[in-house]
Amino acid sequence: MGLKEQKPNGVQAGWKFLGTETRFESGVFRLREDSVELDGGKQIDYAYLERAPAVIVVPITTAGEMVLIKQYRYAVDEWCLEVPAGGTHDSGGASLEEVARKELREEAGASARSLTYVECFYAAASLSDEKSHVFLAEGVELSKELWTEASETIEVQRVPVAQAIKMARNGAIKTGPCALAILLCESRLSSYLPEAPDSLATAVAEGDGCDSGSGV
Amino acid sequence: MGLKEQKPNGVQAGWKFLGTETRFESGVFRLREDSVELDGGKQIDYAYLERAPAVIVVPITTAGEMVLIKQYRYAVDEWCLEVPAGGTHDSGGASLEEVARKELREEAGASARSLTYVECFYAAASLSDEKSHVFLAEGVELSKELWTEASETIEVQRVPVAQAIKMARNGAIKTGPCALAILLCESRLSSYLPEAPDSLATAVAEGDGCDSGSGV
Repeated sequence: MGLKEQKPNGVQAGWKFLGTETRFESGVFRLREDSVELDGGKQIDYAYLERAPAVIVVPITTAGEMVLIKQYRYAVDEWCLEVPAGGTHDSGGASLEEVARKELREEAGASARSLTYVECFYAAASLSDEKSHVFLAEGVELSKELWTEASETIEVQRVPVAQAIKMARNGAIKTGPCALAILLCESRLSSYLPEAPDSLATAVAEGDGCDSGSGV
Repeated sequence: MGLKEQKPNGVQAGWKFLGTETRFESGVFRLREDSVELDGGKQIDYAYLERAPAVIVVPITTAGEMVLIKQYRYAVDEWCLEVPAGGTHDSGGASLEEVARKELREEAGASARSLTYVECFYAAASLSDEKSHVFLAEGVELSKELWTEASETIEVQRVPVAQAIKMARNGAIKTGPCALAILLCESRLSSYLPEAPDSLATAVAEGDGCDSGSGV
């Protein structure tokens, strides 16, 4: 255990790295547990995931519809409406844009005329170092074929852009990073909206009846 | 290893649970690895995190400002602008609203006149079963005192609601779940905006220069 993984901003924040252990490793992430001395001398163990950056692609067809995929998610045991996304852990040095095109092709059977880099965010800053990079894909054309992995069960859907934005706003798109990716693209989507985009901002959120009751 | 954790929707999707092992456990999450037989007979190991639901609180002061907290995040080694949030893993059976009030008090030193349940989403549906529940807190009053944990280093800031929404849209709020929580509240925030809320929807995203170059 050396001190070679001292984090520059951490030092400034009073977090002193003492050592690290790998607790679990898969092809997708590494779970590490760091020993850290906080300001004032208290020592803690901080467990978090190291993950390669991810890409999220918001695909708009030549007809001005958004391409959504409905995917079974084992962790939550639910079918989730999403946009194509994936990690760069197995990308073999490909650029983020290349990975975005690959996910679009594999998960939606689609190709895009143009890709625009939009924004990035941390998927879960308390738990993981994963950065999600959002691309807007325009001029998207669908084929019939998908190249999904064995664990991916996917249905492709096309919805009007205004409806997709509404679904991101009202909780119909329950996978948080995908909903955020759509909303981060919103300012670039006005040319696909039949009416003033502004009406969306004041639309009443509808939700789907998540249990907000007491006792969790 | 029994079959007692067969997931109802998983069966329908062709995912047959064979067994599970706990690979790591902390006070905050459990890392489990399930053996699953997919449609067609292929067996895979699927590792994911079990986490208690989380709450995210979007706090609006009586003066119509949003309360943001600037927090050091060790996993990403960065100071992140966020809204108060936290897990229910140590809530001892308290309701989601009670946990939301606790996080607001502890992380922002604030109390709220009213809390409204807004929406929920999955933080990372491929990796974790965590559900994030969003509350809008209104009539918020700040005190000087914070009740932070040893690993929390926090600065409290107040910004006009319109600016906070813009920051969620342009990547200045880099913690994805917090940015999404703010945008999920947007339709309920129009009374706090000085001008038509619609101008925000078409504001040009500014970003902060995330590296989108090739090779990651």
